[in-house]
Amino acid sequence: METTAPFSQMKDQILISPQQLLAHWQGHRGLTRGLIEVYPDEHFFSYTLGGMRPCSALIDEVLQMADQSMQGVVSGDWPSFSEGEEPQATTKEQVLAQWDRVTEKINAYWSQIPHSRFQEVDKAFGLYEGPIYWFLLYLIDNEIHHRGQAYVYLRTLGVEPPAFWDRPQL
Amino acid sequence: METTAPFSQMKDQILISPQQLLAHWQGHRGLTRGLIEVYPDEHFFSYTLGGMRPCSALIDEVLQMADQSMQGVVSGDWPSFSEGEEPQATTKEQVLAQWDRVTEKINAYWSQIPHSRFQEVDKAFGLYEGPIYWFLLYLIDNEIHHRGQAYVYLRTLGVEPPAFWDRPQL
Repeated sequence: METTAPFSQMKDQILISPQQLLAHWQGHRGLTRGLIEVYPDEHFFSYTLGGMRPCSALIDEVLQMADQSMQGVVSGDWPSFSEGEEPQATTKEQVLAQWDRVTEKINAYWSQIPHSRFQEVDKAFGLYEGPIYWFLLYLIDNEIHHRGQAYVYLRTLGVEPPAFWDRPQL
Repeated sequence: METTAPFSQMKDQILISPQQLLAHWQGHRGLTRGLIEVYPDEHFFSYTLGGMRPCSALIDEVLQMADQSMQGVVSGDWPSFSEGEEPQATTKEQVLAQWDRVTEKINAYWSQIPHSRFQEVDKAFGLYEGPIYWFLLYLIDNEIHHRGQAYVYLRTLGVEPPAFWDRPQL
C-alpha cells in the first residue's frame, strides 16, 4: 500500500480526508467570522452574561489556539501556549485581520501535515495528550462551543446571528 | 487493497477511524448527558434567554436528529423527519431515559455502517445533501452548538456546567 495512493483509490477506505477536514474547519471559521462581523462593535469587548467572558475573549481564545497550534501539529515542536505573537486586538477590524491571517496560516501549514501524523499521539503545548486528529477536533469543537455561547449573547442583544448551516469557505 | 485490512495496517493512511469517530460522538453525548443532569428541573422546560427555545427543546432536537438518522446513515432509507417514535418527554428523567436509549441505538447501528458509506453522497431525510461523514459531523456539531447555548443558560442560573473537556464514554 503506497502512501501516495490517490484519493479515488482510497475512497472506500477512508472516513474523511485531510482536505475534507480542512474544508470542514475553514467552513466553521467562515461562520465564526460572519458572527464577528454582525456583532455590535459597542458590545464586542464588554457585553457578558452569567459572569462569563465577553465575545472578544471567547474569540481570542479560539483564534490563539489555532494560531499557535499549527507548528506543533505539523512538526511536534510546540511553543508554550499564550505567548501571543501580536498585541491583543482592541477593535473588531483588528480581530478580523488576525482571523484572516490565521486562516491563511492554517491553509499553509495544513498541506505540510504528514498523513501518518493524524494518528500519532502527541502532547499539544506540553499539556494535552492524544492523537493529532483528536487535538484538531478539539480546536474545532471548542470554536463551535464558544460560538454557540456568542449566539446567545447576540440574541439577548436583539441581533440575528448567521445561520448555523452557513459555512462560507474563506 | 482489501476492505478488511486491519486498523494497524491502515494507520498511516487514515485520519480517523469509524470507531474513533463513534467514541468522539459518544464522548460529546456523555458530556451533554452530564449537562442535562445538573440542569435545574424547574428551569429545564421553561427557562430561556433572548427569545430562544428552552434547554428541553434544544436537547430534544439533538436527541431526535440522532435517533431518527441512524437507519438512514446505515441503509440510505430515510424516514420523514419529526415522526417521533415516542411521546415528548415532560420530565428530565424521561429525557435521560430517551438519551440512554439513543446511546445504545447509535452503538448498535454504527457497527453496521459499511466503510464505503462515509464518503457516499446521500440526502438525509430527503433534505440535507452531502457525504455521510459530513452529515455525521453536522449532528455532532449541532449538539456542541446547542449545548454551548445551554451552558450560558446554566451560568445565568448560577449553576456550574460540566467541564467542556470532560467526555465520559457511556
